[in-house]
Amino acid sequence: MGNADYVYPSAAEGGESLHKAAIPPPQPFVKSLKNSLKETFFPDDPLRQFKNQPARRKIVLGLQYFFPVVEWGPRYNPGLLKSDLISGITIASLAIPQGISYAKLANLPPILGLYSSFIPPLIYAMMGSSKDLAVGTVAVASLLMGAMLGADVNAAQNPTLYLHLAFTATFFAGVFQASLGLLRLGFIVDFLSHATIVGFMGGAATVVCLQQLKGILGLTHFTHATDLVSVLRSVFSQIHEWRWQSGVLGCGFLLFLLITKYFSKKKPKFFWISAMAPLTSVILGSLLVFLAHAEKHGVEVEGIAAGRSFAMFKHYNIDGNKEMVAIGTMNMVGSCFSCYLTTGPFSRSAVNYNAGCKTAVSNVVMAIAVMLTLLFLTPLFYYTPIVVLSSIIISAMLGLIDYDAAIHLWKVDKFDFLVCIAAYAGVVFASVEIGLVIAVVISLLRLLLFVARPRTLVLGNLPNSTVYRNVEQYPNADNVPGILILEIDAPIYFANSSYLRERIIRWVDEEEDRIKASGESTLQYVVLDMSAVGNIDTSGISMFEEIKNILTRRGLKMVLANPGAEVMKKLDKGKFIESLGHEWIYLTVAEAVAACNYRLHSCKPNLVTDEKAEPWNNV
Amino acid sequence: MGNADYVYPSAAEGGESLHKAAIPPPQPFVKSLKNSLKETFFPDDPLRQFKNQPARRKIVLGLQYFFPVVEWGPRYNPGLLKSDLISGITIASLAIPQGISYAKLANLPPILGLYSSFIPPLIYAMMGSSKDLAVGTVAVASLLMGAMLGADVNAAQNPTLYLHLAFTATFFAGVFQASLGLLRLGFIVDFLSHATIVGFMGGAATVVCLQQLKGILGLTHFTHATDLVSVLRSVFSQIHEWRWQSGVLGCGFLLFLLITKYFSKKKPKFFWISAMAPLTSVILGSLLVFLAHAEKHGVEVEGIAAGRSFAMFKHYNIDGNKEMVAIGTMNMVGSCFSCYLTTGPFSRSAVNYNAGCKTAVSNVVMAIAVMLTLLFLTPLFYYTPIVVLSSIIISAMLGLIDYDAAIHLWKVDKFDFLVCIAAYAGVVFASVEIGLVIAVVISLLRLLLFVARPRTLVLGNLPNSTVYRNVEQYPNADNVPGILILEIDAPIYFANSSYLRERIIRWVDEEEDRIKASGESTLQYVVLDMSAVGNIDTSGISMFEEIKNILTRRGLKMVLANPGAEVMKKLDKGKFIESLGHEWIYLTVAEAVAACNYRLHSCKPNLVTDEKAEPWNNV
Repeated sequence: MGNADYVYPSAAEGGESLHKAAIPPPQPFVKSLKNSLKETFFPDDPLRQFKNQPARRKIVLGLQYFFPVVEWGPRYNPGLLKSDLISGITIASLAIPQGISYAKLANLPPILGLYSSFIPPLIYAMMGSSKDLAVGTVAVASLLMGAMLGADVNAAQNPTLYLHLAFTATFFAGVFQASLGLLRLGFIVDFLSHATIVGFMGGAATVVCLQQLKGILGLTHFTHATDLVSVLRSVFSQIHEWRWQSGVLGCGFLLFLLITKYFSKKKPKFFWISAMAPLTSVILGSLLVFLAHAEKHGVEVEGIAAGRSFAMFKHYNIDGNKEMVAIGTMNMVGSCFSCYLTTGPFSRSAVNYNAGCKTAVSNVVMAIAVMLTLLFLTPLFYYTPIVVLSSIIISAMLGLIDYDAAIHLWKVDKFDFLVCIAAYAGVVFASVEIGLVIAVVISLLRLLLFVARPRTLVLGNLPNSTVYRNVEQYPNADNVPGILILEIDAPIYFANSSYLRERIIRWVDEEEDRIKASGESTLQYVVLDMSAVGNIDTSGISMFEEIKNILTRRGLKMVLANPGAEVMKKLDKGKFIESLGHEWIYLTVAEAVAACNYRLHSCKPNLVTDEKAEPWNNV
Repeated sequence: MGNADYVYPSAAEGGESLHKAAIPPPQPFVKSLKNSLKETFFPDDPLRQFKNQPARRKIVLGLQYFFPVVEWGPRYNPGLLKSDLISGITIASLAIPQGISYAKLANLPPILGLYSSFIPPLIYAMMGSSKDLAVGTVAVASLLMGAMLGADVNAAQNPTLYLHLAFTATFFAGVFQASLGLLRLGFIVDFLSHATIVGFMGGAATVVCLQQLKGILGLTHFTHATDLVSVLRSVFSQIHEWRWQSGVLGCGFLLFLLITKYFSKKKPKFFWISAMAPLTSVILGSLLVFLAHAEKHGVEVEGIAAGRSFAMFKHYNIDGNKEMVAIGTMNMVGSCFSCYLTTGPFSRSAVNYNAGCKTAVSNVVMAIAVMLTLLFLTPLFYYTPIVVLSSIIISAMLGLIDYDAAIHLWKVDKFDFLVCIAAYAGVVFASVEIGLVIAVVISLLRLLLFVARPRTLVLGNLPNSTVYRNVEQYPNADNVPGILILEIDAPIYFANSSYLRERIIRWVDEEEDRIKASGESTLQYVVLDMSAVGNIDTSGISMFEEIKNILTRRGLKMVLANPGAEVMKKLDKGKFIESLGHEWIYLTVAEAVAACNYRLHSCKPNLVTDEKAEPWNNV
């Protein structure tokens, strides 16, 4: 294509751009609708393996799709069993203390925490896709459940009703999850940005820790609210009620748990030490109480299903929607068996992964271990002091406050950091529900702002090339006299078309001011580089018409460069190509600039007055 | 840059890409924050004229900004007055019948409709920017007000309370509008797409027409609901109550109004005929009733502030936020003077424009004409039959049902058409509020879907050039052996990063399947063209890391081409450039492909095993 001085040959010389900016071949509406639906709901094409298969095979594949155990079950061998046995017992040692602690968080009888680590893992082992996910109750969901149910029914006064509500809520949560999965609407969770999740989870973890102050300090009366101010007020207004024995014991166990965690991080080979620590604390604490005839009896207890993260480590794929169906079914069935809300807590799955699990059989092993505990060991837990459970919860929650991620956000994208902090503050200073709503709303607002204020930039010519780039990114790029080259960096929708019109006109105003001040040749052409405009809607097309008219009135000619397939289609249907003239749409910015330069140097006067009369319209 | 066979010189030969894909010079955070805020809230830079002006001038400019009359008032002359007089009287002839009709829609005393065409236009003349906007009550807002207030207070039983509620509602509507304008949040209305507005307005107009069936058929009892089913049921269950005299009279006047409208459209010179028609009908109808001693006494209005559309015709700029402040003030002050919700109806402004108005003084003339009517002519309206008012309303509403726009939407963008129909159906079959909510939600969902499912395309090389374009748009583009070139057509955010990861991996899978089937050389490089990626956030950067790892495990090398300024900044801060290697980021797709070709033809084996050992890393 030569250099920037390329002289554009006229039609008489046989010159014509080698390739015209093409309007793509038309596609029947049904076909493009089918494609759109496929991209929206089936981006990973999960039915690809079903193509060209006999009917019997399709049935088998279908069964395997919903019950993966049908696929990996027959291939199971004793070598895998050995690894799964070890990891299963390891996570069972976590499941038991966490189960009873988190059930306490939800104001439910602690035995439910154990049930919930028995039935649901069995269901998941049949239907789930992740080899590493360890299923059980989570702190944040338990807290949420306790807060929301507690707003309507007092657990102490109406235990049976409360229980039934909890199971019903779990059932419907399961129905909702399974429906989302079946309707392939799992992508909805994509709308929560990572920054939001970090802030929300950190806030929820903080709130859970604050709640444990009741157990650690041995207080009887405590606020029902979860926000920081209420909790601190409740704590510090009862200083005389603090029980130093609880406090000392609690801090002691907490220190023990944190030290084992730190040690396990430094020496990953000894992960099992931090895994065994909670159960050890429970046993120790129960023994202590039993031997000391301590009065406090009874048992007074987040996670993100992280199957995909572990799949990433171990290099296999997880279909998010399929997982949701599995987890939803798990909850629906579980709720019929006195289990409450379960999912796959990250921390427990991390332990499972480190313990070397090979398949979901680790969940089966854990379930069996929990069953044995239920049958033989429950009397032990009558003596477990609350402080131990509180320490276990605090130690688990501290791991969820991901300040490393927050610092990383601050460094890379300060707006994302703001989003994170806002979600955190919403949870800690208001309530978990308000924090969640704030998190979702901020995420969506952020998205809308992205769309509503796309970037526009001025392009300049990199010396000795036909490459045009952003003058801010490449300060050595020169501008071309008489031509203003703008790039629009996003699809053009109703949400940003008004803004774009204002901004483009302002670019033209500023350029004309600059030219007036510097005495350069007057502006005649405005080239719009459409490479980054992925799509355009009817508002966008109207906006282009308006800009064309405004520019025409100012004696300027609008030129388009490199519009994509979708955009060309829409511009064509919207009759804009007719109105602008197909000859003013070029394949590259270089061609557009060359054509304009040719006309500029041919000394043709104001070309917008009567387009039909101008001879070069045949070019 | 030559052709596609360009051999990339090695470092030894002194070859190096002329321009490296550059990381832009760093900008202090405060400066970039200031720029972002300016782009979001002041895209049209309204304070540009204030730069470099002495203090006294700034005060004058400030006064002119809020009270444009200060600017155009001193330049007023008798020539302008003549045009404004004619147009003012014309729109007054519309204002009077429409005012009393629309007040009836809102269940308010008809005289309020006249007050509302008196005070508010005077305020607007002082503060508004549009020369063509004719201010007054609108049918849709009146209907909404009647429906919403009527849900709480019965206008017949509690007229005083109802009245006070109406004024209070108007006052707060004014406060809200003015605040939006002052806080520069006017861009919020951009989030309602044109398709949504067409559907919503069409539905609202249909609902208003349905309501008029009561007046036309002379029914006493009528449903309070507004949806189609309730209204038809109410109408057809009282067939015996229909008064044929009302029906005949109503249809007669309606025919008269529609004929004059049609005639005015065909011969625009006679626009005043259709403008005078409503007032004529009122006078005729009142005379008829008076002479016939008809029993029905008493007196039983939409529009979009279209100042900007007319500004477009007459080539001057309107600052949307400033207009909102003007209209908000108009309502706040008006509510203290027994006026209810007013704005600038499109139909009335169209008449104003056609009548040749020159400045906002046309509003002043209209106000004066209305005042004279109030002082001397109100006894006339006691005799105005409801059927006439109903006909006037129906004839005005039919103009709001923009089926041309709907057909255009069907042709250009079928999804937009669906949005339009959904908003229409929501209003007609449920209620105006539900229809509005549906309209807003669908608009936002459409936006979110745009963002969540960006296009990705395969690029091919146009023969005899270094241009790479979409193979679907340019079927003659060839693909390059061993290299897969993908273009991502939108900014990468949390909302679409999961999808993009799935889709890119799927493109790679499909390409590898195709290669296996056709026996071509194996895939070694995946070039991602980032020209259209305007921005990237932390989720996007994580997604790139994940893709890089997945590709590396499959023996493929990831290469980036033409990342923009923002993207380079973020990739740098997110340490991705370090992790990928800056030498694998090229300025153009052509350079990237040339570099990969060079390596392919140098017959170097699998280069991802140990990058440090490979000699060409110095290139």
